[in-house]
Amino acid sequence: MTAQNVWRGAGRRIEICDVGLRDGLQMEAQFVPTQDKIVLVEALAAAGLTKIEVTSFTSPTAIPALRDAEIVMREIVRRPGVAYTALVPNVRGAERAIESGTDELNLVMSVSETHNLANLRMTRAQSFAALSQVIAVARGAGVPVNVSLSCVFGCPMEGDVPHEEAFAWVQRFADLGVAGITLCDTTGMAYPTQVVQAVAAALARWPQLAFTLHFHNTRGLGLANVLAAIDAGATRFDASLGGLGGCPYAPGASGNVCTEEVVHALQLMGYDTGIDLPALLAAARRLPALIGHEVPGQITKAGQRLDLHPPPPGLPAIRERALARAAAA
Amino acid sequence: MTAQNVWRGAGRRIEICDVGLRDGLQMEAQFVPTQDKIVLVEALAAAGLTKIEVTSFTSPTAIPALRDAEIVMREIVRRPGVAYTALVPNVRGAERAIESGTDELNLVMSVSETHNLANLRMTRAQSFAALSQVIAVARGAGVPVNVSLSCVFGCPMEGDVPHEEAFAWVQRFADLGVAGITLCDTTGMAYPTQVVQAVAAALARWPQLAFTLHFHNTRGLGLANVLAAIDAGATRFDASLGGLGGCPYAPGASGNVCTEEVVHALQLMGYDTGIDLPALLAAARRLPALIGHEVPGQITKAGQRLDLHPPPPGLPAIRERALARAAAA
Repeated sequence: MTAQNVWRGAGRRIEICDVGLRDGLQMEAQFVPTQDKIVLVEALAAAGLTKIEVTSFTSPTAIPALRDAEIVMREIVRRPGVAYTALVPNVRGAERAIESGTDELNLVMSVSETHNLANLRMTRAQSFAALSQVIAVARGAGVPVNVSLSCVFGCPMEGDVPHEEAFAWVQRFADLGVAGITLCDTTGMAYPTQVVQAVAAALARWPQLAFTLHFHNTRGLGLANVLAAIDAGATRFDASLGGLGGCPYAPGASGNVCTEEVVHALQLMGYDTGIDLPALLAAARRLPALIGHEVPGQITKAGQRLDLHPPPPGLPAIRERALARAAAA
Repeated sequence: MTAQNVWRGAGRRIEICDVGLRDGLQMEAQFVPTQDKIVLVEALAAAGLTKIEVTSFTSPTAIPALRDAEIVMREIVRRPGVAYTALVPNVRGAERAIESGTDELNLVMSVSETHNLANLRMTRAQSFAALSQVIAVARGAGVPVNVSLSCVFGCPMEGDVPHEEAFAWVQRFADLGVAGITLCDTTGMAYPTQVVQAVAAALARWPQLAFTLHFHNTRGLGLANVLAAIDAGATRFDASLGGLGGCPYAPGASGNVCTEEVVHALQLMGYDTGIDLPALLAAARRLPALIGHEVPGQITKAGQRLDLHPPPPGLPAIRERALARAAAA
């Protein structure tokens, strides 16, 4: 072990993009009132998040939970230095997002043909063609584009997806001049050995692209994968407030890696996330009332590691009785 | 990154001791019938666990959940090569454990004075004196002793415990000739930077001792801490079937690191745990019915990473419609 290794952050900067309002809320049965969404976004920005995926400009009938996309995006009070992004499925969504003042468009397709067909009802080639049009619209408007590639670390229906196949899609989008690529572990299939290989290869091959890693904690590997990715050179991660965002293939299992858990862990390890953890936790504590159930994240339940508890009130008496027993023995 | 690093197990052996029947069940309100405990222990041994903490020879009134300690320890059908251990609080417990055929005694005290007083109603000095007597009894019977030191990575009431203070207790027990020491993160306060330092220092200072690491996933750091410890040279870990075993200071948060999650992760990474994961999962799936609630572990909910799901039945029709739309456009 060297003085600086993955276990010792030594002040290195890690950027977190919170995706809870999009990847999390889109799964929730209970509609979160528009004003509460706005308050959450503003709370995340105030806590120091520099990128927030605010909503999705999808069809309101497809994802009714996010039917208020325009209002939320327009009405949040913006903080300088924060990128307010949104998921955009097509040109119509891109136009809505751009009109609403979205700072960056996040496009999604899957590197698994089966997953893309099942989720987006298009072949990958069709998705790529449609997203190419979106990229042209965004370029015309001067809005940067990030592409989130699903199932890079495995598809729940096809199984392993060879990295070269995933990388072929990265190359196609790199050729279109996108600013960033998010490598997504959509259903929690990633594991550290694989993550280290994929991240190291991607960073070496496309030094001009801003890569983000998007992990789910479906099988308890989320934080381990974050650390493996950091060890391979990654500096940007998606995470979800409260750990919201599940996977339809794993009912009852955890969702996205939890923003406050990742920040708590990285700060303890000496990384610089730029995030005010108590403020972040205050935002996370709003969630259960808004969504009607507990969140997977542990820190709002357990507290930070040095949130101490008072000793039992009878401790002096316990000590006296213990010492008296010893004296009598 | 070198060819062999922590992310790449490369066949290295990691030993897991399951503590679910003791550290887990002692917290459960519902009494698990004796015969079901025996079946679970036998299932764990059949799955390849080489060390199982079977029960605790505590006062039946103190921990009624484990009031059947003698019967369980006597009636399990033993497998060669498996160490059936038990927690023992005092000489009376040691005598009961030895009479019941326990292979190794696990003694517990805390390196935090406050935690020891609050939990064991003794000062640390008193605990050490009592455990010294237990060690003498065990030596007389030729039964090896392991000492589990609580709060090595922090005390929920005192906060950080300096490693030198924890290590002073390791030295005292080393002087008494114990076979092993378990460094316990009793309430999930450990973090990787700290773990790497502590483990590396302990292994360097006491090469003759068998060190085990015992982590809780209270704040989502469990697996990361296991990997940090492996990177520092640790090869033995406690884990709990289903992730049972909570912490009274963190209601609702996760318990011990989950045996099947740790095994799933380590096997994917190329480590040799010697454990048959499907057999382990079959054992874990018995738990919810026995304890009356879901377990924290994710793998029984989400499946192994390559437990694939069938594509939606309409997938060929989805593809045809997608291609027809494209042709019409």
